[in-house]
Amino acid sequence: MKNSNTENIGLDMYQLCEKLFPICRSITGEGFRRSLNILKNDLELTNLQAFEVPTGTKCFDWEVPKEWNISDAYIIDPNGNRICDFKVSNLHVVGYSTPVDKEISLEDLQEHLYSLPEQPTAIPYITSYYKERWGFCISQIEREKLIAGTYKVYIDSELKDGSLTYGELIIPGETEQEIFISSYLCHPSMANNELSGPVVTLSLAKWLLSLESRKYTYRIIIIPETIGSITYLSRNYKTMKENVVAGFNVSCVGDDRAYSYLPSKEGNTLADTVATHVLKHSHPDFVSYSFLDRQSDERQYCSSGIDLPLCSIMRTKYGCYPEYHTSLDDLTLVTPTGLFGAYKVLKRSIECLEANETLCTTVLCEPQLGKRGLYPTISTKESSSIVKNMMNFLVYCDGNHTNLEIAEKINAPLWELEEVISNLKAADLLRVVV
Amino acid sequence: MKNSNTENIGLDMYQLCEKLFPICRSITGEGFRRSLNILKNDLELTNLQAFEVPTGTKCFDWEVPKEWNISDAYIIDPNGNRICDFKVSNLHVVGYSTPVDKEISLEDLQEHLYSLPEQPTAIPYITSYYKERWGFCISQIEREKLIAGTYKVYIDSELKDGSLTYGELIIPGETEQEIFISSYLCHPSMANNELSGPVVTLSLAKWLLSLESRKYTYRIIIIPETIGSITYLSRNYKTMKENVVAGFNVSCVGDDRAYSYLPSKEGNTLADTVATHVLKHSHPDFVSYSFLDRQSDERQYCSSGIDLPLCSIMRTKYGCYPEYHTSLDDLTLVTPTGLFGAYKVLKRSIECLEANETLCTTVLCEPQLGKRGLYPTISTKESSSIVKNMMNFLVYCDGNHTNLEIAEKINAPLWELEEVISNLKAADLLRVVV
Amino acid sequence: MKNSNTENIGLDMYQLCEKLFPICRSITGEGFRRSLNILKNDLELTNLQAFEVPTGTKCFDWEVPKEWNISDAYIIDPNGNRICDFKVSNLHVVGYSTPVDKEISLEDLQEHLYSLPEQPTAIPYITSYYKERWGFCISQIEREKLIAGTYKVYIDSELKDGSLTYGELIIPGETEQEIFISSYLCHPSMANNELSGPVVTLSLAKWLLSLESRKYTYRIIIIPETIGSITYLSRNYKTMKENVVAGFNVSCVGDDRAYSYLPSKEGNTLADTVATHVLKHSHPDFVSYSFLDRQSDERQYCSSGIDLPLCSIMRTKYGCYPEYHTSLDDLTLVTPTGLFGAYKVLKRSIECLEANETLCTTVLCEPQLGKRGLYPTISTKESSSIVKNMMNFLVYCDGNHTNLEIAEKINAPLWELEEVISNLKAADLLRVVV
Repeated sequence: MKNSNTENIGLDMYQLCEKLFPICRSITGEGFRRSLNILKNDLELTNLQAFEVPTGTKCFDWEVPKEWNISDAYIIDPNGNRICDFKVSNLHVVGYSTPVDKEISLEDLQEHLYSLPEQPTAIPYITSYYKERWGFCISQIEREKLIAGTYKVYIDSELKDGSLTYGELIIPGETEQEIFISSYLCHPSMANNELSGPVVTLSLAKWLLSLESRKYTYRIIIIPETIGSITYLSRNYKTMKENVVAGFNVSCVGDDRAYSYLPSKEGNTLADTVATHVLKHSHPDFVSYSFLDRQSDERQYCSSGIDLPLCSIMRTKYGCYPEYHTSLDDLTLVTPTGLFGAYKVLKRSIECLEANETLCTTVLCEPQLGKRGLYPTISTKESSSIVKNMMNFLVYCDGNHTNLEIAEKINAPLWELEEVISNLKAADLLRVVV
Repeated sequence: MKNSNTENIGLDMYQLCEKLFPICRSITGEGFRRSLNILKNDLELTNLQAFEVPTGTKCFDWEVPKEWNISDAYIIDPNGNRICDFKVSNLHVVGYSTPVDKEISLEDLQEHLYSLPEQPTAIPYITSYYKERWGFCISQIEREKLIAGTYKVYIDSELKDGSLTYGELIIPGETEQEIFISSYLCHPSMANNELSGPVVTLSLAKWLLSLESRKYTYRIIIIPETIGSITYLSRNYKTMKENVVAGFNVSCVGDDRAYSYLPSKEGNTLADTVATHVLKHSHPDFVSYSFLDRQSDERQYCSSGIDLPLCSIMRTKYGCYPEYHTSLDDLTLVTPTGLFGAYKVLKRSIECLEANETLCTTVLCEPQLGKRGLYPTISTKESSSIVKNMMNFLVYCDGNHTNLEIAEKINAPLWELEEVISNLKAADLLRVVV
Repeated sequence: MKNSNTENIGLDMYQLCEKLFPICRSITGEGFRRSLNILKNDLELTNLQAFEVPTGTKCFDWEVPKEWNISDAYIIDPNGNRICDFKVSNLHVVGYSTPVDKEISLEDLQEHLYSLPEQPTAIPYITSYYKERWGFCISQIEREKLIAGTYKVYIDSELKDGSLTYGELIIPGETEQEIFISSYLCHPSMANNELSGPVVTLSLAKWLLSLESRKYTYRIIIIPETIGSITYLSRNYKTMKENVVAGFNVSCVGDDRAYSYLPSKEGNTLADTVATHVLKHSHPDFVSYSFLDRQSDERQYCSSGIDLPLCSIMRTKYGCYPEYHTSLDDLTLVTPTGLFGAYKVLKRSIECLEANETLCTTVLCEPQLGKRGLYPTISTKESSSIVKNMMNFLVYCDGNHTNLEIAEKINAPLWELEEVISNLKAADLLRVVV
């Protein structure tokens, strides 16, 4: 990371997106490995470990598929022009396409083409991981120009026994209790969904590593979506169910248009509490989705029997912006400020989790704060409003409410109570219960 | 029942109302017995059993009153015209009138007349079960025509020791757990309140008998209102409190103007859940009343100490339509589609109860549905929305939610999830917990 | 108290306010003692006991301050005019001012002056109990007239070891369970905040003493605000935590502009239930505040670890009217009807508490009320609505709901159910469970 001061974190993240953008990633293969390695090296995350899970490994109801790699693909039209060129955009090839090299008629070719009539300039993002087929994705405009005749279709890909790759970074804390952060890296050249996710996630990891101490242990993973989370859970869910106190699925965190929240299955976990607390106080116009709107790895993390306390904080949510899953989701959509906005909300959420504890007053009734310099010594019409947050915070310090719950009750952001809490602790008026 | 196919059920029910309409029923007597017998025979309910409870039998705080029968009644006015003729409308006589045969002045007669100034053409429905009196009901228009002079009043009725009659039909199911359905047959010539109730109830019984199997046992009773439900409860409440899991009071289910719901005392029983689920998804503009608005046998079924999980599904509720308890509540108010609409909602409610169970997934994480033909093999922008209900259903199959609760959570009618549930069971992905 | 009939209670209370108004009270000193004595004698509260707690006594985190007394204070301006004369308004002196007698420049004097630029005619109410200083309060208008020159400032006050005074009246009841009522008497010449509080509180005490019997024991205290409640709690909180079932802080109960409610910390105690029940049914436009808006002795009574079930019923709340804590809060703001309105609401709240009990029906199903003369013997369209409250009350008499909870459920004021309850008890249809 070139820039180390805070103001440049957004730009650093953006430049990392630029570097990763051209690589053709999928749920397995060299593109994923190479991207993971760039992230590890550029962010200096020495302890980020890559795991390889062999093709055929059983993972609950699934098994790890064959590894897919591709080096080239195109179509030659009847006039000899090269179209749908993989080297121009890796979105032109249906993900996991089998190899092909033959001549076919336009009519037969049409069966293998995918386009979006309502978004005529966009190349759609299409995959077929679990049924073998080949296909090309093309803009509707280009498709309509195709003339009758014979086309040569060429895909130089390979499906073979290999392995699924994922990255895991464990950052130890004072306790075994874990904060879990997951993002995915399996999408080819798209920017909000999904280069923003792993870039923001691992930039947060870098910040976490820079802290002097952490209450929680952090379990941070970069996986392929769906099969990756299922694979990871099949190997780790018992420990995670025991230790994870809050988690975030980090996806679509790069544009500038909105802040979004998608709850956990239960909707009232610690992750939900902290996410809505931070969003409400920092971006009160944030969009709140239903758990029923989930389409990412919450599907696995919150599935029946797994039920981790995990929610999603996003900028504009997958499926809710027109460029989603097309070639239009590019580096003009994602911005340094977009990335940095998401980074700040996630960082603040983590800070709130770290600051969260249960306090109890050490004296009965209100303490005499005036003699400690914490209360106006002169009583006027306004004197009590000056210290309102402090008095409201104190009254709920009964050992039954966490700081975060109190902040919610008294409608004050936890980070604005920091000084109050610190003063009251310094005066021995509060003791930590949990 | 002449017509056996579904479309004609509404017409069949209407014709049964027509047949029963002229009979003078009351809380005891031959009219009730004859009506119950017609219902039993026309609907071929061989196992519908009539019970007779003798006058004077103690039933909690009440006792069964004398049996009342009436063969004729009228008034001869000073001009010799016969008015308030029982043979023209049995509503002309106050229910449970004692016999009378004498001449009285108009002034004295007025003490015994009942009319509705605000509904001048309507004959009101009036009864006096527990205090002996006699009286005539007359339209306000006719009342205002009465001239001074001597009137002959004649009621050929009889109050004697006899018995109270009720009908009970037990339809056995696979378990002893019961669905309880109650309706009443004690009203003379009125149509919505109350021929619609017993006709719809026993038509449902006919359908229930036609099913190959039933999870629940069905306890279906046709009683006189209030004293009938109290009598029935005094003999059966211990068994019912043990076995009844949901119940419906069926009343005012014949007109075409509205769908209505009146909750149980607690408001959150299984009966309430299923009734509101069905109404919300099939008739979202249904009217929701408060338990405080009850005026029918919920008064007994939900009374302190009885507290059965019973609610009411109605068309236009008693007391909430102008024709209520007058001669205007006739066969023009009730229609075949009105009756059939209520029949369908109650039938669907029962189907939901029968389909309700607690399921749990047999695998952790989402199952791989694609390999079972239950999920699109190609991933596009829309692929997950196609299977949204299935995925949302699955995520709550954790052994802690009934199907009905899940349907509510995911905002889908349970009957639209049938195929999904059946497919997932066939693929061994779900097991029944309860 | 001159007038003993109900209509004159408002006037009696107002006249008592007039008598007490001129006295200079503070949190300690002769003004408080004299005022308490007038209340005791005028209301004939023989058992109201005054307690003296010596200066320096430890009370939780606080200690009783020195006793403050003042006999005179004024400023002589450069022209020889006497201004800020204590004998004209005792608000002119900052409460707990140290003695002073010297000449100073206008510039130096300004450091010791307090005024309200936005309320130019008002003398503000200022105190400095825990930091020794002296000062004068002056209207902004007068302050702006001050000319350059030498001023003589004179305060003939005394700060010495003495004691803090409070009054306590225990009115025994049939049980040891207590209703706690607290008000404060430490404000100098102000009327709504705060002569109304002790005057209404002790007038209620007089009424309570006149009752033949009381279910609850009443603990009524008149204290200085904050240090008084802390002192009182430090001596009594263990007993109070055991016995107090509901409490009220009585403050600002004298004007005619509003009724207000400020909840307890938990918001759902018996005190809250009864206060909102009474206000909702008698003054439906009452203002409901948040516990976060508290600024009076609820701060101590509801503090962490004390947590008494106490709320506040007020007319216009402290801090929410422009005259608050200024010389404008005088006897034109408080009225006989204002005082009497608050008295009635508090009296009704106590009556509801006394009438609150848990009842259970003695029969299953609805009782036959007709034979007991409690139900119409003739059944018409309206007959059931006549007895709706009675039937709704009965259905919840299942031993699981208090009368107050039932009244809330059926949306009827408890005092309108008195006759129904009395009739049903007389007919042996209800028995007391708790």
